Amino acid sequence: MEISIVLYIIGLALMIEGVLMIVPGVCALIYGESLMPYILTAAICLAIGIVLTRRRPESGFLFSREGYVATGLTWIALAFTGMLPFLFSGSTTSLADAVFETVSGYTTTGSSIFTSVEDLPKGILMWRSFMHWIGGMGILVFMLAIVPFSGGTQMNIMKAESPGPSISKIVPRAQDSAKILYQIYTVMTVGMMITLIVLRMPVFDAICITFGAAGTGGFSVLNAGCSTYTIAQQIVITVGMIAFGVNFSFYYFLLIRKFGMAFGMEEVRAYLLIILAAIGLISIDLMVGGVYESAPIAVKDAAFHVGSIITTTGYATTDCNVWPNLSQGILILLMFIGACAGSTGGGIKVSRILLMAKAYKRELAVALHPNIVKKVHMDGKAADENVLRNTGVYVFIYFVIFTVSVLIVSLDGFDWLTTFTSVAATFNNIGPGFGVVGTMGNFSSLSDLSKWVLSLDMLIGRLEIFPIMLLFVKNTWRRF
Amino acid sequence: MEISIVLYIIGLALMIEGVLMIVPGVCALIYGESLMPYILTAAICLAIGIVLTRRRPESGFLFSREGYVATGLTWIALAFTGMLPFLFSGSTTSLADAVFETVSGYTTTGSSIFTSVEDLPKGILMWRSFMHWIGGMGILVFMLAIVPFSGGTQMNIMKAESPGPSISKIVPRAQDSAKILYQIYTVMTVGMMITLIVLRMPVFDAICITFGAAGTGGFSVLNAGCSTYTIAQQIVITVGMIAFGVNFSFYYFLLIRKFGMAFGMEEVRAYLLIILAAIGLISIDLMVGGVYESAPIAVKDAAFHVGSIITTTGYATTDCNVWPNLSQGILILLMFIGACAGSTGGGIKVSRILLMAKAYKRELAVALHPNIVKKVHMDGKAADENVLRNTGVYVFIYFVIFTVSVLIVSLDGFDWLTTFTSVAATFNNIGPGFGVVGTMGNFSSLSDLSKWVLSLDMLIGRLEIFPIMLLFVKNTWRRF
Repeated sequence: MEISIVLYIIGLALMIEGVLMIVPGVCALIYGESLMPYILTAAICLAIGIVLTRRRPESGFLFSREGYVATGLTWIALAFTGMLPFLFSGSTTSLADAVFETVSGYTTTGSSIFTSVEDLPKGILMWRSFMHWIGGMGILVFMLAIVPFSGGTQMNIMKAESPGPSISKIVPRAQDSAKILYQIYTVMTVGMMITLIVLRMPVFDAICITFGAAGTGGFSVLNAGCSTYTIAQQIVITVGMIAFGVNFSFYYFLLIRKFGMAFGMEEVRAYLLIILAAIGLISIDLMVGGVYESAPIAVKDAAFHVGSIITTTGYATTDCNVWPNLSQGILILLMFIGACAGSTGGGIKVSRILLMAKAYKRELAVALHPNIVKKVHMDGKAADENVLRNTGVYVFIYFVIFTVSVLIVSLDGFDWLTTFTSVAATFNNIGPGFGVVGTMGNFSSLSDLSKWVLSLDMLIGRLEIFPIMLLFVKNTWRRF
Repeated sequence: MEISIVLYIIGLALMIEGVLMIVPGVCALIYGESLMPYILTAAICLAIGIVLTRRRPESGFLFSREGYVATGLTWIALAFTGMLPFLFSGSTTSLADAVFETVSGYTTTGSSIFTSVEDLPKGILMWRSFMHWIGGMGILVFMLAIVPFSGGTQMNIMKAESPGPSISKIVPRAQDSAKILYQIYTVMTVGMMITLIVLRMPVFDAICITFGAAGTGGFSVLNAGCSTYTIAQQIVITVGMIAFGVNFSFYYFLLIRKFGMAFGMEEVRAYLLIILAAIGLISIDLMVGGVYESAPIAVKDAAFHVGSIITTTGYATTDCNVWPNLSQGILILLMFIGACAGSTGGGIKVSRILLMAKAYKRELAVALHPNIVKKVHMDGKAADENVLRNTGVYVFIYFVIFTVSVLIVSLDGFDWLTTFTSVAATFNNIGPGFGVVGTMGNFSSLSDLSKWVLSLDMLIGRLEIFPIMLLFVKNTWRRF
C-alpha cells in the first residue's frame, strides 16, 4: 500500500470540501443566518487538507489498489467533516444522526433523521442539497476535472468512484472525461433550475430541488416533500429526475452528434422501457384500487414516483403507504434495479440487470447444447467475460450485505416492511422506504446501531461495494 | 427435439407412479377406507404409461436438451396425475387446490391448502407423505435405478433432476449412482422410522413423519404439526431432518470408509456450521426476548426449526409468528440458503453460496491486483469456471423469478410478510412461511392465481430453474 498518495488525495478532497462551504455560506449570508458553522467547517477542512498535502507523494502513480482505498477513505473522511455544519449549527447534537444525514447527502440517498426540515436554517438545507449535487457525479471525479494527475491515477480513481459494471470513460483521457461529465452535468442542472424558476417555484426551492434531482439525492426543503408544488413543477421534476438517471455517455453522444450511438444504447432503451411499463402498471393499479378518481393525476403521481425511485432520488408527492400492494411491490422492485450506469443514480443499475439477463439466455442455450460457444453481446460488442463474472459476484454479495443489514436493523423491532425497505432505501441510495420510513416519514426513530449500519450501507451502495469492502481485507494493507 | 424418447420416459414415470399407488392403497385397506381413489388413479397412470411406452424410442440416446425437457414434462405430468386421489376421494373439489397439494408433495415443499388434515382419510395422508419421499430423491433417479438406459441418457437425466450446481454422480456410472443413492436413502429412512416407533410414536405417524423428513417435505398428519410429539421424538426428527439435508456423497464416503473425504467436504462443514450458528443466535434471541422460560426448551425449539427450515422440510413444533424479529429474520435467511447439493433439500444450496463467497474473495483480490490469475478452489480442487459462471447467473435469475412471483401474489392483498414468505416458502420447497401462511396456518386463503403461480414456483425451485424455464424457450422445440 502506497499510503502517501492516498493521504494526498484525501487532503485534496478535504480542501475542496472546505472551499465548497462557500455555497451554504452565501446562502446563510443572504438569509441573515450565522456564518460560523460554515467558516469553522471550512477552516477545519482546509487545515487538515493542508497538513495532508504538504508532502508530495513519493510516486505520482496510483495503482488499482490505492485507487479503491483512496476512494473509500476519502468518502469516510468527507462523512466526518461534512457533518460539522449540522453539529455547529445545533441542528442535531447526536453524532450518529449528523453522520447519517451527511452520508445520506453525499451518497445522494436523501434519507433524513430530521422530523421537520422547515425548522432548519436555510444554509443547512442548502448544504444538504449541495452535497447531493457534488456526491452525485463524485467529488473525486470533480477533483480529477480540476487537478492534473498522471494517467493511471485518473483511471483508477474513476474506476473506483464511478457507478456501473465497467469504467465509464467517454474519451480516452480520464481527466477529459471528468471535465466533459461535469460540463454536461452543470448545463443540465442550470437548465432545470431556470425552468423551475420560470414556472414560479421560489428560487431557494428551485436551487435545492434541482441539486437533489441532479444528484438523484432527494432531500426536500419542505416537510410536505414535493406535494405542494404545482403540477407543472412536479412534471419538470419528474422529467429532470429521469434525465439525470440516464447514462451520461448518451448526452455526450448527442453532443458530438453521434445520434445512432446515443439511441442505440441498450441500457438507456431498457431503462426507459422499464419506466414506461412501471408507470403503466401502477397507473392501472391505482385506478383499479380506487386510490385516485382522476386518471391524469394518477399517471402524474405514478410517473413522479417511478422516476423518483428508479433513479434512486426519493422525492415524493404523496404517501405511498396507502397505495395498493402491487404498486408498492413494483416500487420496491425498482429500488433494486436502479438507474443507468454512468449516471448519478444508485441501485444495482440497469446495465448489470441487462448483462445478467443476457448471461441467463446464454446459460439456457448452453443447457440445450453443452458444447456451444457463445458470447454475450452489449451494444453490438462482445462483453468482457471478466465483467460478466464480476457482475454475477456483485449481485450475489449485494444480497449478502443487504441480508445482514436487514437482520441487524430487525433488532429495532419495527414491522418487516419498515425493516426491509429501510435497508433497501439506504443501500440503493434512494431515501424513503415504506412504513415508518415511508415517503411522509423519516429515519429518526431508528436506533443508533441501525443508523450506523445504514450509514455504512449508503457508502457501500454509492461506491458499489469494493472500495469499502476492500478496507476490511488484510491484503489491502500489505506493503506490496 | 427428439420427442419420442421424451414421451417414452414420461410413460415410464407414469407407470411407476401407478405401481406406487400400492402404498396408499395398502394403508387405506388397513384403515378400512375406500380403495377406489388409488385403483382408479393407478389404472389411469398405467393406461397412459402403456400408450406412451408402446413404441420404443427411435434413438436410445438422450441429449442434454431432451434430458431437461423429459424431466420438466415428467414432473408436470406427475402433478396432474398425482392429484387424482385428492379429487377421487373428495378431499377437495378444486383443481387448483389438488394440483397445489400434489406439486407441494412431489417437490417436498409441504405447503398445504387443507385447513384440517385430521379430517382426511389415512390413505390420502399416506399418499401426501409418500410423494415427499419419492420426490425427495427424485422419481427419475428412481427410474434410473431400476430401468437400464444407455450412458448419456442416465447422466443427462440425473443432471436435470438432481439438485446442486454440478452433477452429483458418486460413481462413474449414473445407474450405479442412482442405485447407491436409493439404498442409502432407504436404509436411513427405515432407521428413522424404527427409532421413532421405539420411542412410542404411533406407527402411522412414524411412517408419514419419516417420509416427510427423509424427503425434506414437511406435510404433517396432525393439525398441531409436530408440537404434540414428545421431546425425545422431536429431537429424533430434528437430527433426522438435518441428516437428510447433508450431501449424500458424505454418506457414500463413510460407507466406503473414506473418512477423510467425508469430513473434508467443505459444503457439509459449512452447512453444519451455519446450523450451529443459527441455533445459537436464535436461542439467545428467544431467551432475551422472553419467549421461553426454559433455556433447554428454547434450544430444542430453535434447533427443530433451524433444522426444519434450512433443510427446507417445514415441520413445526410451535408458532414462529410470535418469535422476535431477529429469530424470524434468521429463519427467512435460512429459507434461501437451503440444504446441501446432492441432498433431498431445496433452496439455493450451501455449495452455491460457498462458491459465490469464494468467487467474491477472488474479485477482491483482482480489484487489488488486476493482473492476478486466481482459481476458485472447492474441496481442494479448482472449480470449473463454467460452473461458477452458471452459479452467478443462477442466483440472479432465482431472484428475478422470486420477485415476479411476489408481485403476482401481492395482488391478493395480504400483508408483505405473508406475501414475501409465501413465495419464499414455496419456491425454496420449505412449506410454511410467516403471517397467514405461518407454521400454524396454511395456503387455503390464497387466490387460485396465486396457487397456480406458487405451484409453478415449487416446480421451478425443485428442478432448479432450467428444466422448467427451457420449456418456454423456442429453441428447445426446434428439430435440431
